[in-house]
Amino acid sequence: MSGPEWESLEQCLEKHLPPADLREVKRVLYGKETRRLCLPTAALQAASAGDFELQGYTFEAAREQLRQPRTVRVGLVQNRTPLPADAPVANQVSALHRRIETIAEVAAMCGTNIICFQEAWTMPFAFCTREKLPWTEFAESAEDGPTTRFCQKLARKHDMVVVSPMLERDATHGDVLWNTAVVISNSGTVLGKTRKNHIPRVGDFNESSYYMEGNLGHPVFQTRFGRIAVNICYGRHHPLNWLMYSINGAEIIFNPSATIGALSESLWPIEARNAAIANHCFTCAINRVGQEHFPNEFTSGDGKKAHQDFGYFYGSSYVASPDGSRTPGLSRNRDGLLVVELDLNLCRQVNDIWNFKMTGRYEMYARELAEAAKPNYSPNIIQEF
Amino acid sequence: MSGPEWESLEQCLEKHLPPADLREVKRVLYGKETRRLCLPTAALQAASAGDFELQGYTFEAAREQLRQPRTVRVGLVQNRTPLPADAPVANQVSALHRRIETIAEVAAMCGTNIICFQEAWTMPFAFCTREKLPWTEFAESAEDGPTTRFCQKLARKHDMVVVSPMLERDATHGDVLWNTAVVISNSGTVLGKTRKNHIPRVGDFNESSYYMEGNLGHPVFQTRFGRIAVNICYGRHHPLNWLMYSINGAEIIFNPSATIGALSESLWPIEARNAAIANHCFTCAINRVGQEHFPNEFTSGDGKKAHQDFGYFYGSSYVASPDGSRTPGLSRNRDGLLVVELDLNLCRQVNDIWNFKMTGRYEMYARELAEAAKPNYSPNIIQEF
Repeated sequence: MSGPEWESLEQCLEKHLPPADLREVKRVLYGKETRRLCLPTAALQAASAGDFELQGYTFEAAREQLRQPRTVRVGLVQNRTPLPADAPVANQVSALHRRIETIAEVAAMCGTNIICFQEAWTMPFAFCTREKLPWTEFAESAEDGPTTRFCQKLARKHDMVVVSPMLERDATHGDVLWNTAVVISNSGTVLGKTRKNHIPRVGDFNESSYYMEGNLGHPVFQTRFGRIAVNICYGRHHPLNWLMYSINGAEIIFNPSATIGALSESLWPIEARNAAIANHCFTCAINRVGQEHFPNEFTSGDGKKAHQDFGYFYGSSYVASPDGSRTPGLSRNRDGLLVVELDLNLCRQVNDIWNFKMTGRYEMYARELAEAAKPNYSPNIIQEF
Repeated sequence: MSGPEWESLEQCLEKHLPPADLREVKRVLYGKETRRLCLPTAALQAASAGDFELQGYTFEAAREQLRQPRTVRVGLVQNRTPLPADAPVANQVSALHRRIETIAEVAAMCGTNIICFQEAWTMPFAFCTREKLPWTEFAESAEDGPTTRFCQKLARKHDMVVVSPMLERDATHGDVLWNTAVVISNSGTVLGKTRKNHIPRVGDFNESSYYMEGNLGHPVFQTRFGRIAVNICYGRHHPLNWLMYSINGAEIIFNPSATIGALSESLWPIEARNAAIANHCFTCAINRVGQEHFPNEFTSGDGKKAHQDFGYFYGSSYVASPDGSRTPGLSRNRDGLLVVELDLNLCRQVNDIWNFKMTGRYEMYARELAEAAKPNYSPNIIQEF
């Protein structure tokens, strides 16, 4: 088996490796072993009835004398679009609302405090088409569109912070679109929003035809369950983006994404995990699953024939810890919910051990970057003659 | 088997996985398959006679119309210290010179154009002891010390650029020490030097007792075989350090290191590889091997009893490519030489595909970092009340 059918790296290793070797392979690949979280039977049954994977893990921190453990459970949701992309827009959106409602219900049964959905979760990832209608009709107001109201209800019902990445229509600034994540407090209040800071021009990711680079900087949201930030999709390739969220105090950075096998699968386990290590924080990498077919054919800038599908989204959502360890990934092809318990005290503990912030020399880099960004910059190159 | 005896991740996977699964595991772990390089039989025999591993791989780029392929072979050397740490300083240094001479000879037989040794290659990694004598006696002038003269001879003899990471004694600035890498042109000229920009205070890595953060910025060396830079050891944890070398034009960044199993092994495959991806360049991660025992006992800041050894250096040197793929690692416990052929055209090709520089928004980050570095910085935190 290969391609989308191949279930996951972890399942393959567990099937074939002898126990002692499996332990060493996991140590080298994943660091310190991540304990499984004991989840309620009712939740496991509901997940099975709802036909989605449910996995739970926990990251522990050392006990401190002056701080209690700061335990929080995050829920990462990966899913396919239930209806085909040529179904009416309103039907597609409500089918997705219903699907997420079911999954969030199970997340609540598992004690999830903060839930995050995948990038542009209310729609197919239609930016490959470069068509405007009907895709731009999926855009909504971040503050009071139907999807935000739906998420507010979820948040209140489950006493849960909701991170809702969606296509935003900005009516107060010329009706432009943004790739946005709305953060809703567990009280149901819209805490604020954050926008995708880096926009791809890669293959089928024609997103710069729809929206520009975010203009909200690097906000961090102080929730009841810890300080969180959202680095949307392509921003995970930019170490500075992660860094600024971390400098602003983020303890958990979500990376809701939509990315496909042929393009990025070997980068996926590297980037969010590197960010967790480099910034002494937890990172949550979320990718959608399945194949999306579009009504009209399009080309992909790769010299190949026009086609109507968008490769396959390979799921594999995971959480990485500041100590360099990580959870296994969710399936590459099934809807799934990953519930992970974090002790946020680990962030400062690892910071005190590795000291990347203390040794970061940010003043020097601010100066060097400011120079380097000038049109007449002369790079520091030493040559023999 | 576990600990230092466990040979390598790759050997374990190849032994146990069925071919089809092995292909998928490698694709997810390592990206596009890296072809083996055909090396001369005489070189393989010489390596075997010299009791060190010799591996070769090649990364290819697409053919272009206007540029010829820019093919270069790099050689990464990992080795243990041949003599015990309590042997006379001069004997330890000459034993290391002899060892490296043998390995460089084989590298030359394999057509290596640029060779890089491990961090502080002329000495045991004695900074765990916090003792000054005899360890500071390993320091030499970067410009005309015996080790630099030795490397100049190597460079001329083999028409090879030599990157020589060593402990520098800076006689013209108060006799201070630096952790430095000297870059010697294939003509034998000292092209220049670069210094370790970030200094650890982690466990046994008491290096800040010996030398301070480098003051030479981020120089890039234009050699006959391409533009190279050297990010020494702990600098690999700092994404900004890689970034500035890349902004200054580095196509290959060497990361000569000395790091041990318990501390960093699960970080090792992540960081240099992430840097290759994020910066559209090749990165070469080099770690020493073996266990070093010191004459006097020392503690490690971990609450454990005093001891005389420094864990085990786990080798596993590898090269990562801008397209996200990588070579397997060298052994975890044997001396080794990794010869990798790179087509430097791949850097710009991947840059044109992924566009991380074009979409990098460096002006914004220069401003944000300059603000964040101020003592009175107020982080961008949004809260409900």
